[in-house]
Amino acid sequence: MTARDYMQRAIELAQKGEGHTRPNPPVGAVLVKASRIIGEGYHKRAGGPHAEVAAIANARRKHEDPRGAALYVTLEPCSTPGLVGACTDAIVEAGIKAVVYGARDPNPKNAGRSEKVLSAAGIACNLFADTAFFDQKGGNELVKPFAKFITKSVPYVTVKIAMSLDGRICDNKGNSRWISSEDAREATGELREKADVILVGAETVRKDNPTLLAHGTANPDLVRAVVTRSGKLPKKATVFTDGKNETLVYKAPDGNLAPMMEDLAKRGYMHVLCEGGLQLATSLAEQGFVDRWISVIAPKVIGARPLAKAAVVPEVVLMEDVL
Amino acid sequence: MTARDYMQRAIELAQKGEGHTRPNPPVGAVLVKASRIIGEGYHKRAGGPHAEVAAIANARRKHEDPRGAALYVTLEPCSTPGLVGACTDAIVEAGIKAVVYGARDPNPKNAGRSEKVLSAAGIACNLFADTAFFDQKGGNELVKPFAKFITKSVPYVTVKIAMSLDGRICDNKGNSRWISSEDAREATGELREKADVILVGAETVRKDNPTLLAHGTANPDLVRAVVTRSGKLPKKATVFTDGKNETLVYKAPDGNLAPMMEDLAKRGYMHVLCEGGLQLATSLAEQGFVDRWISVIAPKVIGARPLAKAAVVPEVVLMEDVL
Repeated sequence: MTARDYMQRAIELAQKGEGHTRPNPPVGAVLVKASRIIGEGYHKRAGGPHAEVAAIANARRKHEDPRGAALYVTLEPCSTPGLVGACTDAIVEAGIKAVVYGARDPNPKNAGRSEKVLSAAGIACNLFADTAFFDQKGGNELVKPFAKFITKSVPYVTVKIAMSLDGRICDNKGNSRWISSEDAREATGELREKADVILVGAETVRKDNPTLLAHGTANPDLVRAVVTRSGKLPKKATVFTDGKNETLVYKAPDGNLAPMMEDLAKRGYMHVLCEGGLQLATSLAEQGFVDRWISVIAPKVIGARPLAKAAVVPEVVLMEDVL
Repeated sequence: MTARDYMQRAIELAQKGEGHTRPNPPVGAVLVKASRIIGEGYHKRAGGPHAEVAAIANARRKHEDPRGAALYVTLEPCSTPGLVGACTDAIVEAGIKAVVYGARDPNPKNAGRSEKVLSAAGIACNLFADTAFFDQKGGNELVKPFAKFITKSVPYVTVKIAMSLDGRICDNKGNSRWISSEDAREATGELREKADVILVGAETVRKDNPTLLAHGTANPDLVRAVVTRSGKLPKKATVFTDGKNETLVYKAPDGNLAPMMEDLAKRGYMHVLCEGGLQLATSLAEQGFVDRWISVIAPKVIGARPLAKAAVVPEVVLMEDVL
């Protein structure tokens, strides 16, 4: 096994925590000794052990000795005692001899500090050199919501919409089920698993009455949010009556979404997934809140027809433009 | 050099003819002897020499002897004398010993016939075995317009539209210049080079007053066409007054586009590129005329703003759906 394999495994571990760690970033770590992973762990939720500590504990449970091991971790270890002790202390205590981390601490106050602390303790601490590999495997993606949240005091926002080749998100009867395929809806389910909040406009609740829950496996940490201009909401809608995940309601009579965004951040929510409607998504973009926009383009032409009769186009080519 | 290299070169040669050969397909050919290309040619326009004959003549001009050579050609050679003699005759006369062709003749009346004719003359004639490579390099693409035209008596139709992430093709003032980037417009210019006809709706002529000419290098064979429901057209529009390529006008008062499509085929036009408006593109799709739809997705959100202020989204992910 190589350094790439260790870092890739650490990324995979971190991804298990996505959507559950707020207001902390998801982090994964592996301990390596004699080219073998002797312990692995990830940060499961705020207040629980950090990935580094989890990996050390995992090694010990398997009767492996962390002394002299190298630690591969997706994010620079913390050096300040928070809810749990500082990871740098745990690393020193465990007798680890080298630390390789994938991403720097996005908090400018802490960035680079653990390197100093660990170096002073005689432990080599370095950024993972193969930054392209780290990015390609999703390492940077892991920390983006936290980075936005910690530096801007608003959540990271992903917009996801499905549209047809002719740019329609619903047919002439307002019906949007289903523009996209089951595969695409499966992918949406995975996006929901990784988010803290699923946000929609009131009109989407009225028209589609969605559950806004993670697909397949339930995510008890997921929060639903509905924003309304008018303040009028269908009280019997599924999101208000199903007794499942919490549903927040925000009023934005003047269309200003900043108060909602700031409140979501105050509650510790780092990653908001907006699934519509298009007007809300557009307003978020216009107000500068959108970090990532995911368009699912279905290979059909809706035109003025009802969805069931959308015209199918044999060959579809998408040329993603560069601004 | 390998068989792949020969066939790839034949494809490149054929591509030079795209947009100029109607009502014939574009075809390219190379003659190979002792692992060396001794002659190459392509079909430049109807009435001119076919690719096979051009490659033989090219070899002779270079004082190379085609006898005993292998011919790599993108399309099954013709075996019936048309405006020029049958290619099978020229192949036999030149003393070529083997023929490898990339695509079968799409005309069911002719498919496979040259193989019989050439075999009878003692010349090995075979379909190029690496069909995946041929397709990947654009070999099948070359013959699609002709195949549609010859089997359905209507042109092959490519729709190309540019839209924003929120599915808008223009802003709230009807302004669509420019949603997409210069790179994307460059790609459109290349599409225009390969088409026989550029088709737009009357509203596009009214709103955008486009030239509908190939970008950069002029294509004198390109024909422009405008279709109108009302019959009212701006007589001073560039396409009617610039004195450049011909502009056809079709009236479709009831929205039925079949008469126009049939007339275009009767004139020998094999490939129509529809560049809008969206209503025309949608009608073409609904009436089953669209073969290929190219969406250029610009990484911006237009919403209700004028184009100059379109919101920019840092990260864009497109998930192409499968029906």
